[in-house]
Amino acid sequence: MALRAAVAGASGYAGGEILRLLLGHPEVEIGTLTGNASAGQRLGVSQPQLLPLADRVVEETTPAALAGHDVVFLALPHGHSAAVAEQLGDETLIVDCGAAFRLSDAADWERFYGSPHAGTWPYGLPELPGGRQALRGARRIAVPGCYPTAVTLALFPAYAAGLAEPEAVIVAASGTSGAGRSLKPHLLGSEVMGAMSPYGVGGGHRHTPEMIQNLSAVAGERVTVSFTPTLAPMSRGILATCSARARPGLTAAELRETYAKALAGEPFVRLLPEGQWPNTAAVAGSNAALLQVALDESAGRLIVVSAIDNLTKGTAGGAVQSMNIALGLPEELGLSTIGVAP
Amino acid sequence: MALRAAVAGASGYAGGEILRLLLGHPEVEIGTLTGNASAGQRLGVSQPQLLPLADRVVEETTPAALAGHDVVFLALPHGHSAAVAEQLGDETLIVDCGAAFRLSDAADWERFYGSPHAGTWPYGLPELPGGRQALRGARRIAVPGCYPTAVTLALFPAYAAGLAEPEAVIVAASGTSGAGRSLKPHLLGSEVMGAMSPYGVGGGHRHTPEMIQNLSAVAGERVTVSFTPTLAPMSRGILATCSARARPGLTAAELRETYAKALAGEPFVRLLPEGQWPNTAAVAGSNAALLQVALDESAGRLIVVSAIDNLTKGTAGGAVQSMNIALGLPEELGLSTIGVAP
Amino acid sequence: MALRAAVAGASGYAGGEILRLLLGHPEVEIGTLTGNASAGQRLGVSQPQLLPLADRVVEETTPAALAGHDVVFLALPHGHSAAVAEQLGDETLIVDCGAAFRLSDAADWERFYGSPHAGTWPYGLPELPGGRQALRGARRIAVPGCYPTAVTLALFPAYAAGLAEPEAVIVAASGTSGAGRSLKPHLLGSEVMGAMSPYGVGGGHRHTPEMIQNLSAVAGERVTVSFTPTLAPMSRGILATCSARARPGLTAAELRETYAKALAGEPFVRLLPEGQWPNTAAVAGSNAALLQVALDESAGRLIVVSAIDNLTKGTAGGAVQSMNIALGLPEELGLSTIGVAP
Amino acid sequence: MALRAAVAGASGYAGGEILRLLLGHPEVEIGTLTGNASAGQRLGVSQPQLLPLADRVVEETTPAALAGHDVVFLALPHGHSAAVAEQLGDETLIVDCGAAFRLSDAADWERFYGSPHAGTWPYGLPELPGGRQALRGARRIAVPGCYPTAVTLALFPAYAAGLAEPEAVIVAASGTSGAGRSLKPHLLGSEVMGAMSPYGVGGGHRHTPEMIQNLSAVAGERVTVSFTPTLAPMSRGILATCSARARPGLTAAELRETYAKALAGEPFVRLLPEGQWPNTAAVAGSNAALLQVALDESAGRLIVVSAIDNLTKGTAGGAVQSMNIALGLPEELGLSTIGVAP
Repeated sequence: MALRAAVAGASGYAGGEILRLLLGHPEVEIGTLTGNASAGQRLGVSQPQLLPLADRVVEETTPAALAGHDVVFLALPHGHSAAVAEQLGDETLIVDCGAAFRLSDAADWERFYGSPHAGTWPYGLPELPGGRQALRGARRIAVPGCYPTAVTLALFPAYAAGLAEPEAVIVAASGTSGAGRSLKPHLLGSEVMGAMSPYGVGGGHRHTPEMIQNLSAVAGERVTVSFTPTLAPMSRGILATCSARARPGLTAAELRETYAKALAGEPFVRLLPEGQWPNTAAVAGSNAALLQVALDESAGRLIVVSAIDNLTKGTAGGAVQSMNIALGLPEELGLSTIGVAP
Repeated sequence: MALRAAVAGASGYAGGEILRLLLGHPEVEIGTLTGNASAGQRLGVSQPQLLPLADRVVEETTPAALAGHDVVFLALPHGHSAAVAEQLGDETLIVDCGAAFRLSDAADWERFYGSPHAGTWPYGLPELPGGRQALRGARRIAVPGCYPTAVTLALFPAYAAGLAEPEAVIVAASGTSGAGRSLKPHLLGSEVMGAMSPYGVGGGHRHTPEMIQNLSAVAGERVTVSFTPTLAPMSRGILATCSARARPGLTAAELRETYAKALAGEPFVRLLPEGQWPNTAAVAGSNAALLQVALDESAGRLIVVSAIDNLTKGTAGGAVQSMNIALGLPEELGLSTIGVAP
Repeated sequence: MALRAAVAGASGYAGGEILRLLLGHPEVEIGTLTGNASAGQRLGVSQPQLLPLADRVVEETTPAALAGHDVVFLALPHGHSAAVAEQLGDETLIVDCGAAFRLSDAADWERFYGSPHAGTWPYGLPELPGGRQALRGARRIAVPGCYPTAVTLALFPAYAAGLAEPEAVIVAASGTSGAGRSLKPHLLGSEVMGAMSPYGVGGGHRHTPEMIQNLSAVAGERVTVSFTPTLAPMSRGILATCSARARPGLTAAELRETYAKALAGEPFVRLLPEGQWPNTAAVAGSNAALLQVALDESAGRLIVVSAIDNLTKGTAGGAVQSMNIALGLPEELGLSTIGVAP
Repeated sequence: MALRAAVAGASGYAGGEILRLLLGHPEVEIGTLTGNASAGQRLGVSQPQLLPLADRVVEETTPAALAGHDVVFLALPHGHSAAVAEQLGDETLIVDCGAAFRLSDAADWERFYGSPHAGTWPYGLPELPGGRQALRGARRIAVPGCYPTAVTLALFPAYAAGLAEPEAVIVAASGTSGAGRSLKPHLLGSEVMGAMSPYGVGGGHRHTPEMIQNLSAVAGERVTVSFTPTLAPMSRGILATCSARARPGLTAAELRETYAKALAGEPFVRLLPEGQWPNTAAVAGSNAALLQVALDESAGRLIVVSAIDNLTKGTAGGAVQSMNIALGLPEELGLSTIGVAP
């Protein structure tokens, strides 16, 4: 008896990826699809890659349309989740891909988002210490941001083991789908191809407090994060280069071993063999996160690089993985570690 | 009880795509993987996207290594299939992604390939009239070339119904993976990005006689083909723009209806709704072929545009689809019409 | 004593390319820059690549702003040129990069553009027979469309010499900058990268009547054109694959020789040596058009492939070249045949 | 009376870019072009973008071929410069784009390059304090590496003014042309498109000691550098994100003002207005370096991002700029700050 899942925001990039994964999920039946500008359209117009759903018609995002589902995925533009969520009862598992319920610190929320804090939901990063426990039986899930997923997975083992000083420096490159389907000049193909450029430099990116929250919790002390996101000429993928000063005496072998242990048994996070480096192409459409570590003795820093697909592990895959845990299903159901490459 | 499948050429692009599909095939167990330069390596080195197989070791391509499998996929550089094939008995289904056994006319073969004709095997394009019948129970399958797949699917309904004059003009754009992993200067990323260029212009491309063979068989008369392939700045995908003079009196409605009928029930070929055009991104990793038709009354021509993933429907997906038919399995097993986009 | 040139539409892609070329033109001084949404902005915001003009402020497009210049380039959205042009007197050379004054047949104009015909100006393709003569001393110039430039240059020698039957079949791939900076979903980087797709199939593209006009004039008879444009994952460049049935008895040597003669002495159109094929990357930022010819004896067709930069030879470079001729300056001033590659 | 310049390595990417610039240099006449595998070929085969030189024939790289020029540019594969250089007398200005003569510390050289140190030549980064003086009248010039150019320009003002602690953390993304035309699998277009990946992580990249040398000289104390290069899916461009802990009390205004002063009058390095960020597309083919600064008060770090074209300012443009200074020509001759974009 399949679970019925609705997707609000079905014509966006995150919504499309959720649907792609749900189509391959053996326990889920796809229910209502809602949208805003796309309401009334065939889904094939906005998601031509999802042939099995091409003739489904997008409905307007209303409480009535979303009612009566076992799971509702919210893949809405920033600021719309809370209003939709409060109209759905506890009989529905809500998985929110937006930011509204990610931060526990109301002051952080207000400083970075400029609106009242809506609350905090169980955080959908199962790999964090205690992460799975927090999700089991949950009826509300806050899916992490794509950058915080890549960065937290890269650095939590180091901070959990006390290998790094609490000042992380992160530069991440993201494909353009991370910005969604918003019609902004700098996202046009003509602007993006051949172009690397940074944005939100200097601490302003809204994903920064989420990284600080995650890493500080693991480290047991306040970790500062210098985070610079850059836009790369590709549709999908995040490559996060994360570093911190190494604790005195740390050796490369110890660093490697710590990561191997921390990630042992993780179905979706993989420490690559020595000599092989994470590559966003290798995780296109996959729920895997690829990691590699290095110790730069001359600079006294440890460097961890991670690669994820921002739409899969960074959004929709993370959402499905957390849903599986919340509902007591096998965590890997409907997900894979197989990318579409080259 | 699963079928055991070996893949010869496992470290190439076609081999990697076959493995990606077989990993999701419920009736197949992946047996031996062989390669040439990659023999002795972990598969993860050449196929980092296939995490579940990362630690499998590539063996050398020898008869002994390939023996004892129910199915052997040959994804070898041009000219190597025949020798390998003749050492495997009829208890093994051989699915050859190379050109050796595609052409029935020995003279054509010799003119275009410059070597003796090795023979003709059942042709792995089930959508052709009589195509499935030819494959049922087959022990040898010649997988079509990627361009002939895109072009034949685009034009066979027109020729089968006598809508077009027997002079087809085709311009197709292919992603670079169609050229395989060969180390040639013009395939370097620096050369390819920002670049569209033709090659094999003027009738010289080896896929031309295969298109002529397919279309002539359907038309019941010799069809000439002017074929110009171009290299596009993308990894995957073929967009084939195919046209021919329309038979006098043909209407747009009749053209559309003919295609709708010819493709009705086809699991992997889809005539798009009016107003929507094929897009290679929508079929990335999918076994679907997307088609759209138009009648240019002013020029007196019908135009059919098709989009496929050259590695999936154009190679590995076509191979698995034909294998399914040959072995009496459901044709769609292990395949999907869902692309990874954007 | 330099000529003063104004650019209306300075913040668009065509406007930016005009400015890039004028910055290197020894006889031109850049006067007023106007825009619409960008009025009041520093030019550096919309054209960050033009550092020498970064601090110039964009004014609103008004007759007063454009008055008092020797030359005014119009790089305006479709439909705005005529109104601006009629307010400028004959003391100003107007070079219009829009479509308004390209077609001589009012019925064609109205069928394809759906508005009253504004008139016909001297056509800015000097390479056409009689082309330079038509431009000398002109005070109004209609710059050709980018596709018609690529296609006309490719086929006019064949039609002028009577080598081809009057039914041309053309498939062209264009970079996304050809669509300008318009905010349309299908032009987003996420949609464009990895994607080839056609549009305006079946004779509907507005550049079709312009090609017919050019080729028919040269051929001395009505030439039909089947034109399929496709969008390629690159910012700049057009690759046009043009073919027609060859007149009986045509040989490859005769074809080649005809082109060599027709193009001899042309500063910007180059027939490549045998074995080398046009490539859009090689003309990035260059005013060159690269051509190669082939005769497909089996299909009975001649094929000509041309590559241009849609923004340079296809728009801004063609505009400057025609301006030079109109003003009696050396035709090559401010232009080059050197691309920025790889 | 023009200077005659030879280019050794004329068929590579750096050599092609040198020739592109020299074609526009009013005081230089292009003499002998030499190559290795390309010897005997028309230059048009390897450099199809340089139409004016298409019919020049590449000669073998021998002392005789290079003799008798006023300037010889060496754009050779690593390890070949020293041998060629020692055969040319002091009457010839040698501009070496290779690494051989960049480092002053022999131990550094041997550790990173594994061969005996060949010596130290005047360093071709005029923007460094004392940089121009060191180049005036020089007969030998070591052109900086592309990454060190981007990074040094980004950070030298901070270190010269004592604004940053001596531990720099740098992540840079480079287009694939930085790796030259070498036939390596990971540089194939199929691998590169859609892919971001790091390499040389952990301090191993050979450009690291060069950055340390430059920044330490400016800072007056040993600066450590953690440098992570990444390969981006584009042909050209480097985006370097550079950060360091800020000296206590530093304000954003002070940071900005320091950079404005340090760069005032520099013809090729531009501090962008607030709110605008460096973008590699804006410097394609341009000799400009675009910079922007930010102070992250929460993380206590200053961040400087720079964008250059790795082939222009990062190699060939830097080489020509330094040649101009050495020969007493105006520094900007043959160079521009105008990019080809979009």
